[in-house]
Amino acid sequence: MIIKKSNIDIKHGVVDMTHGSGGRATTELINEIFLHTFDNPHIRQGDDACVIDLDSKYSPPSDAYRLVITTDAHVVSPLFFPGGDIGSLAVNGTVNDLAMSGARPLYLTASFILEEGLPIEVLQRVVRSMALASSNAGVSIVAGDTKVVEKGKGDGIFISTTGVGYVDKNVNISGRNARVGDAIIISGTIGDHGVAVLSQRESLSFETKIESDSAALNSLVLEMLRIAPKGVHTLRDPTRGGLGVALNEIAHQSNVGVVLQESSIPVLPQVSAVCELLGLDPLYIANEGKLIAICDPNHVEALLAVMRAHPLGINASLIGVVTQDPNNFVQMTTKLGGQRMVDWLNAEQLPRIC
Amino acid sequence: MIIKKSNIDIKHGVVDMTHGSGGRATTELINEIFLHTFDNPHIRQGDDACVIDLDSKYSPPSDAYRLVITTDAHVVSPLFFPGGDIGSLAVNGTVNDLAMSGARPLYLTASFILEEGLPIEVLQRVVRSMALASSNAGVSIVAGDTKVVEKGKGDGIFISTTGVGYVDKNVNISGRNARVGDAIIISGTIGDHGVAVLSQRESLSFETKIESDSAALNSLVLEMLRIAPKGVHTLRDPTRGGLGVALNEIAHQSNVGVVLQESSIPVLPQVSAVCELLGLDPLYIANEGKLIAICDPNHVEALLAVMRAHPLGINASLIGVVTQDPNNFVQMTTKLGGQRMVDWLNAEQLPRIC
Repeated sequence: MIIKKSNIDIKHGVVDMTHGSGGRATTELINEIFLHTFDNPHIRQGDDACVIDLDSKYSPPSDAYRLVITTDAHVVSPLFFPGGDIGSLAVNGTVNDLAMSGARPLYLTASFILEEGLPIEVLQRVVRSMALASSNAGVSIVAGDTKVVEKGKGDGIFISTTGVGYVDKNVNISGRNARVGDAIIISGTIGDHGVAVLSQRESLSFETKIESDSAALNSLVLEMLRIAPKGVHTLRDPTRGGLGVALNEIAHQSNVGVVLQESSIPVLPQVSAVCELLGLDPLYIANEGKLIAICDPNHVEALLAVMRAHPLGINASLIGVVTQDPNNFVQMTTKLGGQRMVDWLNAEQLPRIC
Repeated sequence: MIIKKSNIDIKHGVVDMTHGSGGRATTELINEIFLHTFDNPHIRQGDDACVIDLDSKYSPPSDAYRLVITTDAHVVSPLFFPGGDIGSLAVNGTVNDLAMSGARPLYLTASFILEEGLPIEVLQRVVRSMALASSNAGVSIVAGDTKVVEKGKGDGIFISTTGVGYVDKNVNISGRNARVGDAIIISGTIGDHGVAVLSQRESLSFETKIESDSAALNSLVLEMLRIAPKGVHTLRDPTRGGLGVALNEIAHQSNVGVVLQESSIPVLPQVSAVCELLGLDPLYIANEGKLIAICDPNHVEALLAVMRAHPLGINASLIGVVTQDPNNFVQMTTKLGGQRMVDWLNAEQLPRIC
């Protein structure tokens, strides 16, 4: 699929319908923008599917490992925000979903839905950001696809990423494994991502120095599993819906209750201020570089220590406990000492946050 | 992630922004429309990533197999057309990309970008069609994601599918493997899918009985590899860009030329008629249930025999040969005996055909 002369004008060009035709323009776009940037032996194969040797150093023998697969569509608006963009978000989000099963993320695929009129330069920025994020996370983008829709039938760039990894057979981490008495840890401050994206919306622009926490958590998880391989029962990245929805999901999956201590939940003062101003609850705001760990109480000290020693876990905090509760309620002891329900989110707080 | 009471109104409801919030409405939509329809032990795990035991009957030991991964975004318009819809197309397209490497397709993921206002009933029809297509192809949909964008920022439903499968280490099928002297087979008539979709476009509506050929080709490939495991060098499904672009791609990948016999290329008379009327070339029209096989000439007879005995290969035909050509040209001997270039597609023939 090599064509020598390319007509792609990276500086001034825009995506048009021919870039989705499957013909010469599509090939040029793929060569110039994607293959060049994501370059690796797998994506270079040039077929519609990518073949991977399982006995390479990244593919352990099957009798010791299980395959893990996850997928996400990304429609964040705007495409760029403080601390990240749709490209790094797409990579980190999918890497994190794999990591939350205790897996080692290895391969990503990326499919793009581009809106006619998108500046090529914008696409290139996003693709480069994806390449950097994958390199940081230690994963390869091995296959991709690009489609183009007419102006007004899309919104710049949508990216769907799928991740494949392997998990050791002895690791058993799931939302179904929270046990009564378990401790609940959050790896850092909540709400940063949602508020950072919000700050870029035209209708809501406000001055803030808040950056998205978008990051790949697989190296943090590796450290945690090294120190307490059997002590971590559940991992979950509280993205869309935030900490509140993630804990409700886990409570249902494991048929338990949760009691949180509001005073222990780390929130940046700037995030608190924006939330108060706009009537938002940080508990339901999306995070893209944080994890919830539900773990054996005997391992909490050790886990907090390794987390706080990792750049992505400096503000790790013990925020609550798992309780017996046939209603699977998530409750919170407020800073004033009262009790409040942290209900499943009923309405839309922030659309298109990831 | 089980919530007892659901507020989804399948008959009269429409998708709204809360279905993308990650909260209660999202969970209800996922439970009612997706999990129920795609039901299998993997998707039922309920975590963000799906864990698969590699020693199950579908996951052969790693020393005999290689992992194959592919991804596609689907933006076909309209969503429903004679012979298929975006759901079956998304499943078949991804299954076929795996099959074209000789792999056994096993697992699919599906991510949905829904436009606010989409009738729930339309979504359900599409999801059911995906479930039926996956069941027919023998694959499981093991993970998914759903996002919602505002009205006017999408177009009903976009679906990105990723497929994972395994291929025997002794199988080596790739666009890079076409050899001078190889025979080129097409599994049946070309252009059916593109013309079927076109017939449904408001601006171009015409009366025709043409149906899309959308189908999963993995069982046909299995038969072909059984009869000639070493005789098949290249497989490619000529989707977007059609036979013309697919052969140009292969010619470049393998650094060869191609000479086709126009009289041998099967085209339905109705497809020919529509193409003539609209000034389209069937060589560049998308197919979704056809394959090109480039093979050792000694195996052509046997391959054509097993293909013609399979319901998806009844009209299989020998259409050309691979030649030595440093320019990697695809040429065609026309019905009148002349020679014409089958160039890489330069313009958009049919937007959003898959």
